[in-house]
Amino acid sequence: MDYQDLIQKLARETDSKIVMLIMDGLGGLAMDKGGLTELETAKTPNLDKLAEESSCGLLDPISPGITPGSGPGHLSLFGYDPVRWNMGRGVLEALGINFPLQAGDVAIRINFCTVDDKGNVTDRRAGRISSEKCEELAAALDKIEVPGVDTTVRPVKEHRAAAVFRGEGLGSDLNDTDPQVTGKPPVALEPGDKESERTAGFINGFLEQAKDILSSHHPANMLLLRGIDTFKRYPSFYEIYKLKAGAIAQYPMYKGLSRMVGMDILEAGSSPADLFDCLASNYDNYTFFFIHVKKTDSSGEDGDFERKVKVIEEVDTHIPRLLEIGPDVIAVTGDHSTPALLSNHSWHPLPYLVNSKYCRPDGVKQFSESACAAGGMGRLPTVSLMPVLMANALKLNKFGA
Amino acid sequence: MDYQDLIQKLARETDSKIVMLIMDGLGGLAMDKGGLTELETAKTPNLDKLAEESSCGLLDPISPGITPGSGPGHLSLFGYDPVRWNMGRGVLEALGINFPLQAGDVAIRINFCTVDDKGNVTDRRAGRISSEKCEELAAALDKIEVPGVDTTVRPVKEHRAAAVFRGEGLGSDLNDTDPQVTGKPPVALEPGDKESERTAGFINGFLEQAKDILSSHHPANMLLLRGIDTFKRYPSFYEIYKLKAGAIAQYPMYKGLSRMVGMDILEAGSSPADLFDCLASNYDNYTFFFIHVKKTDSSGEDGDFERKVKVIEEVDTHIPRLLEIGPDVIAVTGDHSTPALLSNHSWHPLPYLVNSKYCRPDGVKQFSESACAAGGMGRLPTVSLMPVLMANALKLNKFGA
Repeated sequence: MDYQDLIQKLARETDSKIVMLIMDGLGGLAMDKGGLTELETAKTPNLDKLAEESSCGLLDPISPGITPGSGPGHLSLFGYDPVRWNMGRGVLEALGINFPLQAGDVAIRINFCTVDDKGNVTDRRAGRISSEKCEELAAALDKIEVPGVDTTVRPVKEHRAAAVFRGEGLGSDLNDTDPQVTGKPPVALEPGDKESERTAGFINGFLEQAKDILSSHHPANMLLLRGIDTFKRYPSFYEIYKLKAGAIAQYPMYKGLSRMVGMDILEAGSSPADLFDCLASNYDNYTFFFIHVKKTDSSGEDGDFERKVKVIEEVDTHIPRLLEIGPDVIAVTGDHSTPALLSNHSWHPLPYLVNSKYCRPDGVKQFSESACAAGGMGRLPTVSLMPVLMANALKLNKFGA
Repeated sequence: MDYQDLIQKLARETDSKIVMLIMDGLGGLAMDKGGLTELETAKTPNLDKLAEESSCGLLDPISPGITPGSGPGHLSLFGYDPVRWNMGRGVLEALGINFPLQAGDVAIRINFCTVDDKGNVTDRRAGRISSEKCEELAAALDKIEVPGVDTTVRPVKEHRAAAVFRGEGLGSDLNDTDPQVTGKPPVALEPGDKESERTAGFINGFLEQAKDILSSHHPANMLLLRGIDTFKRYPSFYEIYKLKAGAIAQYPMYKGLSRMVGMDILEAGSSPADLFDCLASNYDNYTFFFIHVKKTDSSGEDGDFERKVKVIEEVDTHIPRLLEIGPDVIAVTGDHSTPALLSNHSWHPLPYLVNSKYCRPDGVKQFSESACAAGGMGRLPTVSLMPVLMANALKLNKFGA
């Protein structure tokens, strides 16, 4: 059962404020047998003290064993069932560049690539062309007209762009054309249903014209399509939780995710300090803040244990500032684990803490995977976090008489 | 939601190997207040050391409070929702003797029994007739012909046999005819729907002829029907997990369960040592091994605390052999608890450990109910175990972008 409908019925608007501090890819692993994780290694006196005054536990982003992408990981954090509401990369990419998607639009992520004379892909990223070149190519492709459908192409960054197809009854049960390896041609579209078959016709018409246009732009002489998906309207944070929500996130994907659930994007600088400055200056205007720290994840993905430790330690130094601002409810956790050992997202559950006047401290004295495993909140699916935060903010009415 | 479909989408075939070591009925209880369980009493230095290097927790075979039979217990271990995929004893019994069931077949477990002149049951197991006698009687019943349906009878062991009814549109919403007590006649069939009404007609026709045939074979002069159920095809381990799976199990029911999910049955001798010999000699040919130890359960069912302790201790001595073989992922747990105190299956959660290069050791230093209750994996439904093992074997792609 999806408890989101129930939460929506129970939610009430109050002035209390919730801050959700997300360190992307926070969870980790020891590099050696018997060693410590990144978070356990980091000196985090402020988070440790906060944990001591909080309820702690472990979160499964999706369910045990499942490694989430950033999309499903954040949907869970926002309280949206990540399987029911899962969306393709194309939609995320379009939202990330603030494209005004409408329900029913089919969004596609484009990677410019290089193909040889035989049409085989020789570089899946076209040598990472400059963002300026990307803008030039996207503008050229944006002029393409396909009868029966409206097509739009927008640049994203380097070799990445986004395409949006708008029309009646479009389907998106379509594979990626990216062969994932070099030496092979782009994969043909294989539609999974009637609507998608029609859409595949439009996309193939688009691709033919695109090929002609790009032929003179080596190394970006072809494109690959990924994450083709239909945009569906998501119920907003205000509709579900009656929360006025602001997102303090710097990367396009997280801005896109936040915008998708109706959050305002609050522009901030690039350091952790900037995030908390942004919180302070917008504090009066919202009742919910999502703060997103990216570099825990990127250092984990680079396999850089030490850098991930340092990012965590830097965030820790700003916790006193957060406490000074004084939200009624604070949650600290991540969207998924990114152990440096794996240089990748992983399935391991995340430590989390929930702090409010009404939480039950549980003897956890360190904010870490191992200490939180013994926390009083136990192991929960991440999708349960929002209801717990709403409750701690006294924003949920009683269920039933 | 059923996560099995999601796992199927994410699973990828790799060379890494998983071993699931199941001690049937592993979980237990202390015989006296303040005492130790069977597993806590057993000296298990090797399992304890393995636990120290593993992630540990407790598993609920179905959900808290539910005592499972062996069928649902194993379905959960194999990652099949045990309520959705539950099957009757008749199907299990037929699979156990390697009967080539087809989708739609109705399978029935037969118990030969003794009835008196009035038709009341005086011995529900016909004095446990010999397996030779069972073969003779099954051969006689196999000759029965019922118009409109194909009937087959095969011996199992002692007083147990299996019948299979094959035909168009058969139903199996039918009760057991076993009265469960002596002094009463067999219970009449009460069909729950139209198809089952028609099937009940066939079965009653069969029973009438069987009664005549058996009348001269006292004490096996009647039969009782149990676990009437329709066989449905189960998606195989390979279809779901892309695993080449081998089952090292000695008892018909567990072989049947393993075969049902597409595992190869690897024949082994009857001692724990034989199980690991079998693992070693088949190690190169599979990527998943299910090893089933039966005697923990049977000693528990006999209320023999000491014997159960000894079986556990014997299994423990082979753990170094398992580690030497060196699978990438090892899980040790049971399908359900069978406390000697209850002489029966029970609802108590099972201790489990998951060991791999990528598990998070959690400070658990003993493989026991109480120590694992404080483990870092927390309390999970057993059906979540397979996804966790797949993840630890790096056999699951990321979900979502």
